[in-house]
Amino acid sequence: MLVLITYDVSTIDAAGQRRLRQVSKACQNYGQRVQNSVFECIVDAAEWAALKIKLIELIDPEQDSLRFYQLGNQYKNKVEHVGIKASLDLEGPLIL
Amino acid sequence: MLVLITYDVSTIDAAGQRRLRQVSKACQNYGQRVQNSVFECIVDAAEWAALKIKLIELIDPEQDSLRFYQLGNQYKNKVEHVGIKASLDLEGPLIL
Repeated sequence: MLVLITYDVSTIDAAGQRRLRQVSKACQNYGQRVQNSVFECIVDAAEWAALKIKLIELIDPEQDSLRFYQLGNQYKNKVEHVGIKASLDLEGPLIL
Repeated sequence: MLVLITYDVSTIDAAGQRRLRQVSKACQNYGQRVQNSVFECIVDAAEWAALKIKLIELIDPEQDSLRFYQLGNQYKNKVEHVGIKASLDLEGPLIL
């Protein structure tokens, strides 16, 4: 299933900058960055549960926010891109 | 239906900063900002067509990007928020 993750992490101090890197890194393990603070992750239920717990642990809920959007399995016709840096089709053929 | 709009607008010059303001303003006419470059818009098909055309006209596709995610009408259980600034429930009771 596709889960869209968007986040706002406060970077006013070093701790916030570190949280931002950690949140981004955690998302990269499961999917791809499609915009600055937007990741698309194709995960099964168990992977999603693990990633979600990890992300919630990483942020400071008093300063940062996470939003999760469940787009299900039939997501290709629900997503549209316009402009620079179109995202890779994660499940499409890998062209070497 | 709920359409999630995420965008990255290059702000390296004044023209980009103006595009960012315009994109944000166009989205505000149809919905609410839930994170820095993330808007949730509840629109019908005609409103969506008009907003989409407007946004595509506003950006510079060589520098900026827009992503549209169709979450349909049954979206409440597809969206989850963690942390600061939870979004208003647009269709919920307006508490004065």
